[in-house]
Order: sequence, then C-alpha cells, then structure tokens
Amino acid sequence: MALKMILDCDPGHDDAIALILAHGNPTVELLAVTTVHGNQTIDKVTRNALAVARIAGITGVPFAAGAHRPLVRVAETAPSIHGESGLDGPVLPEPTLVPDARHAVDLIIDTIMANEPNTVTLVPTGALTNIALAVRKEPRIAERVKEVVLMGGGYHVGNWSAAAEFNIVIDPEAAHIVFNEKWKLTMVGLDLTHQAIATPDVVAAIAAVGTAPARFVVELLAFFGQTYREAQGFEHPPVHDPCAVALVIDPTVMTVVRVPLDIELTGTLTLGMTVADFRSPAPADCTTYAATDLDHGKFWALIVDALERIGDPE
Amino acid sequence: MALKMILDCDPGHDDAIALILAHGNPTVELLAVTTVHGNQTIDKVTRNALAVARIAGITGVPFAAGAHRPLVRVAETAPSIHGESGLDGPVLPEPTLVPDARHAVDLIIDTIMANEPNTVTLVPTGALTNIALAVRKEPRIAERVKEVVLMGGGYHVGNWSAAAEFNIVIDPEAAHIVFNEKWKLTMVGLDLTHQAIATPDVVAAIAAVGTAPARFVVELLAFFGQTYREAQGFEHPPVHDPCAVALVIDPTVMTVVRVPLDIELTGTLTLGMTVADFRSPAPADCTTYAATDLDHGKFWALIVDALERIGDPE
Amino acid sequence: MALKMILDCDPGHDDAIALILAHGNPTVELLAVTTVHGNQTIDKVTRNALAVARIAGITGVPFAAGAHRPLVRVAETAPSIHGESGLDGPVLPEPTLVPDARHAVDLIIDTIMANEPNTVTLVPTGALTNIALAVRKEPRIAERVKEVVLMGGGYHVGNWSAAAEFNIVIDPEAAHIVFNEKWKLTMVGLDLTHQAIATPDVVAAIAAVGTAPARFVVELLAFFGQTYREAQGFEHPPVHDPCAVALVIDPTVMTVVRVPLDIELTGTLTLGMTVADFRSPAPADCTTYAATDLDHGKFWALIVDALERIGDPE
Amino acid sequence: MALKMILDCDPGHDDAIALILAHGNPTVELLAVTTVHGNQTIDKVTRNALAVARIAGITGVPFAAGAHRPLVRVAETAPSIHGESGLDGPVLPEPTLVPDARHAVDLIIDTIMANEPNTVTLVPTGALTNIALAVRKEPRIAERVKEVVLMGGGYHVGNWSAAAEFNIVIDPEAAHIVFNEKWKLTMVGLDLTHQAIATPDVVAAIAAVGTAPARFVVELLAFFGQTYREAQGFEHPPVHDPCAVALVIDPTVMTVVRVPLDIELTGTLTLGMTVADFRSPAPADCTTYAATDLDHGKFWALIVDALERIGDPE
Ligand SMILES: [Ca+2]
Ligand SMILES: [Ca+2]
Ligand SMILES: [Ca+2]
Ligand SMILES: [Ca+2]
Repeated sequence: MALKMILDCDPGHDDAIALILAHGNPTVELLAVTTVHGNQTIDKVTRNALAVARIAGITGVPFAAGAHRPLVRVAETAPSIHGESGLDGPVLPEPTLVPDARHAVDLIIDTIMANEPNTVTLVPTGALTNIALAVRKEPRIAERVKEVVLMGGGYHVGNWSAAAEFNIVIDPEAAHIVFNEKWKLTMVGLDLTHQAIATPDVVAAIAAVGTAPARFVVELLAFFGQTYREAQGFEHPPVHDPCAVALVIDPTVMTVVRVPLDIELTGTLTLGMTVADFRSPAPADCTTYAATDLDHGKFWALIVDALERIGDPE
Repeated sequence: MALKMILDCDPGHDDAIALILAHGNPTVELLAVTTVHGNQTIDKVTRNALAVARIAGITGVPFAAGAHRPLVRVAETAPSIHGESGLDGPVLPEPTLVPDARHAVDLIIDTIMANEPNTVTLVPTGALTNIALAVRKEPRIAERVKEVVLMGGGYHVGNWSAAAEFNIVIDPEAAHIVFNEKWKLTMVGLDLTHQAIATPDVVAAIAAVGTAPARFVVELLAFFGQTYREAQGFEHPPVHDPCAVALVIDPTVMTVVRVPLDIELTGTLTLGMTVADFRSPAPADCTTYAATDLDHGKFWALIVDALERIGDPE
Repeated sequence: MALKMILDCDPGHDDAIALILAHGNPTVELLAVTTVHGNQTIDKVTRNALAVARIAGITGVPFAAGAHRPLVRVAETAPSIHGESGLDGPVLPEPTLVPDARHAVDLIIDTIMANEPNTVTLVPTGALTNIALAVRKEPRIAERVKEVVLMGGGYHVGNWSAAAEFNIVIDPEAAHIVFNEKWKLTMVGLDLTHQAIATPDVVAAIAAVGTAPARFVVELLAFFGQTYREAQGFEHPPVHDPCAVALVIDPTVMTVVRVPLDIELTGTLTLGMTVADFRSPAPADCTTYAATDLDHGKFWALIVDALERIGDPE
Repeated sequence: MALKMILDCDPGHDDAIALILAHGNPTVELLAVTTVHGNQTIDKVTRNALAVARIAGITGVPFAAGAHRPLVRVAETAPSIHGESGLDGPVLPEPTLVPDARHAVDLIIDTIMANEPNTVTLVPTGALTNIALAVRKEPRIAERVKEVVLMGGGYHVGNWSAAAEFNIVIDPEAAHIVFNEKWKLTMVGLDLTHQAIATPDVVAAIAAVGTAPARFVVELLAFFGQTYREAQGFEHPPVHDPCAVALVIDPTVMTVVRVPLDIELTGTLTLGMTVADFRSPAPADCTTYAATDLDHGKFWALIVDALERIGDPE
C-alpha cells in the first residue's frame, strides 16, 4: 500500500533532497507539496520547490505556497547556510509547474480531509507555521492524519542557539501548537540528523548515478558542505530533511523512542528548545517520539535508489 | 457613506448588545458577523449570535463560525460572567439564519478583499484568534482594511488578572499578532468600558422602548448586572463590547489618544497585559490608539436609538 | 517619641534632599545611612552621601557602603538624570566623616537587632539590593523592623521602561525579595512622586532660607530640572526620594491605600513592574501599601522647615 | 601542598559522604564547612553536618549555618530522597562540635580573604545561596579563590524537572550569580554523577573497611538506594556530592571539558537548566567547565581509602 505523504518544506538544500527522495521512492505517494518561510522568503522557497520539481520530473502533484512569516516572532532566514536564493550552488531551471491556487493551509486541510482517515502522513521539514495554522483552522485534521514525522528540534543538540534548532526556534509558537496536538508525532531532530553526514563515499555513490538530478544533488551537497564547514565547523555536511522522509519509508532506518516532548516558549537561553523528558518511561498517553540512532548506510542507499529510479526526466 | 463593518464576537451579553447596535444604527453597513471561542465554546457563541440575529431581525448578513480555541494556550471560558450558555438570562429563540459555509477566517479575508481598500472596519469584541489567523493567512488584509477597533485590554485596568483583560489574556499570542500589525488599531479597553455602566436610568430608558429586542436587552443587563455584582463587585454592570461599535459610529463618543501599545507574552504576573507607553508623545509611526474617556449619555443614546430603529422585527 | 530611621540610598539629587530632610526634621532619629549602587557606582554614591553629610552638618551617624551591583542583572546607572558624578551640579566638598567599617548589610542588620522590636523604619530610596541581602542573611529583621517605606516602582507609571521604575528594574530580584517579605511595606512610587514637583515657587521658598545647605538644594534642583526636562520632558522636576521620608514623618502628607503588590520578574515588556491588584478590596493578610495622592504644600513645607532647622552648619 | 577546601553542603546522604571524603583524604585541608537549606531545612542539615563530623572524628574545623531559604523562590526540600531528617537511615549521634558564631556567608568570606590568593577551592554541594550571597557581599572573593568545583546541574540530564537538577532549580537566581562570576567554575552535574553508582561490589568494599564510619556509609547507601529505586527508578543509587570533592583531589578521576555554561531563569519547562553551548570550541575567555566521564573504580577507591584512613575515631 502506498505511503500517502504531504511534504511541507522550505527548500533549502536538504529539503530539495527530501523532495527527491519522496518522489523517487516507489512506496511513497506524494499527495501535495506545500512551502513555508524559513531558509528563505516564501517567494524564494516556493520558486525553489518548483525548480526542484522540474529537475526531478515531478508532475501531477499540487504545489502551494503558505505562510510568509512566523505566527508571532519576527521572520528570520538562513542565508549563511543556504545562500541568498535559499538553494545556492546549482543553476536552477525555470519552473514549469503552476502552483495550486489554494493557500498551503487549505491544500493541507483539503488533502487530509479528502483522503481516508489514518492514511496521510504529514512531513514538515521547515518551520511549523503552515501546520499550526491548518490544525487551528480545521481541528479535525488532528485525528484524521496518520501521523506527523518532522525534521526539527533536538533533545540534546541545538544549532540556531545552544539549545534550539532553526525550524523550531524561528516559529516556536507554531511548534508548540504542533507538538501539543493529539496526533502521533515523531521528531527527527539534530541528534539524529547530525548522523546523516554526506561523507565523500556517499557523494561518490550519488555522482555515480550519472543523471542530471544526481548531478544536481552533488552540487547541492558541495555548496551545503562549504557553508556547514564555514558556519558550523562540520567536516562534511549533515543532511537533515530527507531523514524524516526516510523514516516514513522505512522505520528500520533509525531508532525511535517514545518520550514526552514539549516546546519552551519563555526561556531566555532556551527559547524554542524541544524539551524531552527522559527521566522515566513515557506515560501511556504519550504520543510523541524522538529519533535517536541512524543506520547511515541504509539511509543513503534510499537516496541513491530514489535517484536511480528518477533517472533523467527531461 | 456607510460604515462597512465586520463584527467578530463571542456573544456574550455585551457582544449581543454590540450586534444590536451595529445592526440598528443607520450609518453602519454590517458586512459579516464572525464568531470566536471566548465567553463560551464556539458552538455556543455561534448559536447565540444566530439567536440574537433572529431577535434583532438581522437578515442578509453572512454569519460564520471561527476558531474553537486559542492559538497556543489552553481554552478558557467565562461562565461566571456569562453563564453556561454564554448568554444566560433571556430565553433564546431557535435561530433561523443558516451560517455561511466558510470558516470565519475565510469570510473575513474574502470580505475585506472584495471591498474597496480602506473601507472596511474590523471590530473584534472577543479573543483575537480569528483576526490573527486571517492576517497570517492573507497578509494583504493588513493594508486593505480601514482600521481595527476592538474591545479588549486596558492600559491601567485588568479583570481576568491584576494586569490583564479577558479577551486578550485568553489568547495573548493572537493579541500580539493583531496589536503588532501595520493597520491602525484602537483599543477600547477596560479603562473606557468601565465607564459604560448600565445604570438604572439607562435600563429604564431601554425598557421604555417597549419592543421585544429592548426587553431582550433589559433581560441581558439584569443577568449581567447580577454576575458583575457577584464576581467583580460592581454595583451596576459595565457593558464593554458596544463601546467599540459606538466609537466607529461616532468618534465624539469617547476620547482617544495615540500611544504605543504592545502585548506582554512572558510575564508571570502580567501575561496578556496591554502595555501602553505613556512616557513621551507617541512616535510618528505609531498606529495604535487607546480610548480613555466616555461620553456616557451619548453612548447610551446610541443604544436606545438603535433599538428604536429596530422596532419589533417579528 | 523619635522616629528611628535607617536611610538606604544612592545619592542622587533627590536622595541628597531625602537625607537633608531626615537629618533636619526634629522627629526623625537617623540611626544609619547606607549606600547602594544605582544612580552611580557604589564608590560615587558613597562619596556623595558623605559630601552631603558634611554640607548638612550630619555627625554621629554611621555611614556604610553596600552592594556594588544588582543581585542577578548587569549593573546600570543613570548618568542621563544625575550626571557622571551621580550628583552633578553643585561643587561638592571633601567628606569629613569616615565610613563605618561594616558592610551596609551588616550595619542594617546590627542596627535593627540592636534596637527594640517595632521601632526602626527602613527607608530605601535606591535599588533594593542591600535590603534584600540583609533579610536573606538575617531573616529575623523582617519581624523586627517597624516598617519599610520605600521610594520605587509605580502602579500605573514607569520611567525606565513603559511599565517599570528605575530603582526596581535595575534589581528586580532584590525588589521581589523585599516586596514579598512579611514586613509592612509602603511603596511611594512614581504615581505619587510625579506630584512632588519642584515648581518655581518651591525653589524660591528654598532659596529664601538663605543658608549654604539651602543653596546646595537649589543647585541640585537646577541640575535635576534640566535633566528631567531633556531626558523625560518634564517642565519642572519631580523630587522622588524625600517623599518616602516625608511619609514617615507625617502620614497626612499623602494618601496611602492597602493593595497587593508584587514584582514582575519574567516579563519582556514588564520586567520590574510593581504589579498592583486593585480589582477587589485587599485581603486581610495584605501588608503592602501604595501612596496615591500628595499634599504638595505640606510636603515642600517639610523640606523648607528641615533646611531652616539645619541652618548653616559650618 | 595541601588542597585547601571549603565545603558548602546540605547533608543529605551524598553530602555526608562528600564530607567524609574531604576529611579522610590526606591531600585535602578542610578549612570550613558551611551549610545551606536544600535537602532539608537549614536547622536539620546543620545538625546533620555536625553529627557526621562526630562520626568521622572531624575536629578543629569551623562549621557555620547559612541561608535558610533561596534568594527569590519559595523554599523546597527533598524528603522523597533524603527522608524527614535529611539523613534518614542511620541513627545519628548528638553532635559535639559547637558551630561557629558567624553566618556561613561571613565564614566563607573571612576564610577566603584570610588565605593566600588562589589557594582556596570552594566546593558547593547544595543550593548556591550561600555562595551567591558571599560574592555579592564581598566581590573580591571572586578573584581570590582558586576555583569553584560544584555538584549541581547537568548539561543533558535533569532530575527535579525534565531539564533541571535539584541544587540549581531550587535557587536558580543564586546559581545564575555563581555561574556568571569570573572565577573558574567546574560543574560536576548529573551527566557525571549518574555514573557514580554505588553498586553492590562498591558497598561490599566499603563494608569491608569494618569501622563505624564505614558502617555509617553503608547505612546511608542502603537508605539512599531505596529512595532512588522508588522515586527515580534507579537500580543502585548514584552518589553525587563526593564526585565534586574527588575531582579536587584527583583531576584524573573524571574527564572535564571547557564549555560555556549559563542558567535559565525564565523558562517555563527549563527553569534552572544549566545550558551548555557545545556548538563550537569554547571561546578563549570561557571559565566554565563540565565533567563528562567518570573513572568509576578510581572514584570509589578514593572513598574506601578515606574511610580506611579515618578508622574508628571514637
Ligand atoms: Ca528545511
Ligand atoms: Ca465579547
Ligand atoms: Ca535614589
Ligand atoms: Ca547536596
């Protein structure tokens, strides 16, 4: 049975790879792609998403732009990591897909409500503004989705502050909304994604696919590797967002533990921290999970496989 | 020229009177009525709004239900003030109006975007959840509305805490969004509305109108007077929400000063306080205003006049 | 019976006048003068206090320096109001008094414990760091003092922020400690002291005393008037600190109401606000009071009287 | 050369063992023992400290009682871990030592100022109230102590909340003061002390010493083991406080990393968290360190050695 997925993203180098994985993997049925402010402005990340769609040969999937800013906080972008375009490095083609006329929030709601209960997985890989707006506008989606598997946060690791990760801290109120809803939610955070390193052998394996989309990914990783080296001192770059997609595809690609998670909204040093309570076994009504350990080989094999299946679309 | 108004409310005794004033006043063109959680649950306040519409003979105006809970905080209602139904006291008729199929957020957006720029006044008299969701979903409404005139807050007076008023403190994040948008915003807060006392002579003047809607208002004030006496120690009840409508109708009904206003989101004692900075003259780019002094006679004359014009609809 | 007083201050123009009032008034027995960081560094305000002692002819009273910085926050001073010396304007003489060897905290504790219970009034007119340290080091002083009458805060007025006053906001944790102790505490805040305006007729009356200390006060007011005009837009300067001393001398010099008071420690806009709860009559166990209305003539008559009694000490 | 140490503690089972280690180890010169509210009230922990002194044969060392409550927060104790006496389990003898007349704060200050600069190590193993009061009363101690090595906090582990440890969270403002002073500070937190497990072989080795103090420690561990099993789900109890003393004695007993540390004061979920910034190498001016990995065998060998040297004092 197909894994029905809505990808809510802010491409973003790793979002682009997440989109390619979702498209290329044969078990995923991509129902919709929505965009959200974050790595760059909503206009830029939407254009980037559509450009990636052309590169990867995605057709027949609605794309819709969403929130242009966080709920409460002043908007922040990440040019130090993703460049001025949000997807610096490769030359991007003009998009051919025309975006859906609906707001991302309505596309998310309509898609979830139009599918059978418990069949659609929401995969946010950016700020959680769209998801928060959607569940506040249509609360029934909280019980209708199958689950939420998101890239964001970190129970012991921060990047945008000592204690907080970018996707969460740029819209902590939205994250608070999403983490406290009654759906099953799995946080694929920095603790996990800092294991998803694009090592030279990984890059070589991708390059060996030999197609235009594979070359595009290699170029993304080259740029990402440089900014991660300069801005965060990484030898090789971690690739966050496809980890969330990978977990939906294959639960054995990482270890996940059940643990209460919540978002700090008032901390001076800890604003936007995803606070995990590991002190005791999670209570019976706990619906939040955190990813802990990655199978590095299995993860990258999924990426290479997706690229091979995509081939050369144009 | 008609004063085009969207009333976003949570009836609520004073919301009911605000709706009657907006409907009965000849200069107001009521474009839409939207409801929001607050005094009671969204289902109850929506039913109440529709019941008031029947009592006041409102037809041809779209009514739509909105947010069922605050953005971030746990929902809170006010049965100590408004009773279990949200409109305890009078016997309510079955509504005859059928609500609009749209969500309040979309009705607000559509109505603002369908009218000429700078013509529609938004009058929220409940929690600001709908307004916040609307401006985050469609940011262009911030520049397209004429202004926002809301009942809520208080620069020196609180009721739900020492420093905060109910409408603001039950969804402070929504209030923060609304108070920090670029539209002109006037806060008709407790400093003002605690002057809008329904004194015995006022009640007598309303009763003298002699119609069913007037009797309904008298019954509302009787119940409201009792809960305000018991829960907050008032001799006669203040009637908050119609003050905001009255200011739209007649700017001379109260004094308004320009002053920077903002919402406290992290205070332990001051969460949801509407902080006004009276230290210096407001800077040139300040777009927030606060009502200070009410003309009690002029205000209540507007209510009586509206009731007289409404007559006996059924 | 003499009014035994400990004055804890940070001279400071108005602190200087408070000290002169405490010294010159015949009913006050000044037991000790302690200094605290605030308007300027501890070294400067201590030197200023000793210089004022020489000008006013104060001898036989122990002076001791106290805390050099706030408990938790980074130190802040007020050169825009009090100049670089903390007492800019007049030429200051070299002090002749030698400070007590004890820390202010120990002098406060020793003085309170050495006097009969319920006889010593603590009058803080600066940050509350010394008082907080004293009551944490020796908790018995909380029950042994007669009362605390302090200048600081404001229930509706701020100066260092929209909602907070300088003495409180520069060490809010100390203020929280002091306001929550079990002693009787009266806040003489900005609501009151902004009525204690040094109008031209007041200045003329002081000048007419014709002594060196009176000339000193006139010079203080001239400088204070200028900075208050430039920094805070006052036509004539308010003189805060002597109001607290005046209330101890003559309870009829101002109106005081019993009201729960507490200090906001986590607010973004309201840090250091003295939150008063005026919603209901104060509960029976409430030990905090706020000054509301000043008798302007009676207040300034106390100052002039003190100066006349002091005469020309040297 | 002797390691001059001031132990500031709240015995407390692990504090008792820390005191025994400091006394029995031949390289430590115990200059003073001060007590602070925490595991139990100041009266109880002071009595406990004196009882341990008798058991361990400590004479000639000044003991002084300190703060009876936290700076700002309401006092909290830990009877679920340490029992009603603070040292439940063994029968305690009547103390024979007479406490020093000074307040702990003054004993700490006097001791540091009376010894050569850079020779005295402060070892707090309770709430940081005394240390905070001392450094605010006498700021010169910050440059005069050799270093502060404390038990408290945890960079990834909490016990009193998901993110915070007991010693820190019961007086977070004091901790903020201590962690932000300019002295070298090493945090021996839960990350480290949860490795200092009193396993059965450890208990057997202690029992084998065969003296009254060793039997006392075995009884302490029996009680502590039971409460840790019941309240926190540990199979065998971690023994926190002696780890800090052990690090002073032998730096090779654990690994320590330099990392910026600070205390969260406003977090809703994270109040009192010791926030460590591991994102980059610590800046050159960083003076805070965190312990990470314990040499379990070496640590417990120090305890056994101390007990053997103490022998049977009475
Ligand atoms: Ca992303
Ligand atoms: Ca209302
Ligand atoms: Ca002062
Ligand atoms: Ca301890």
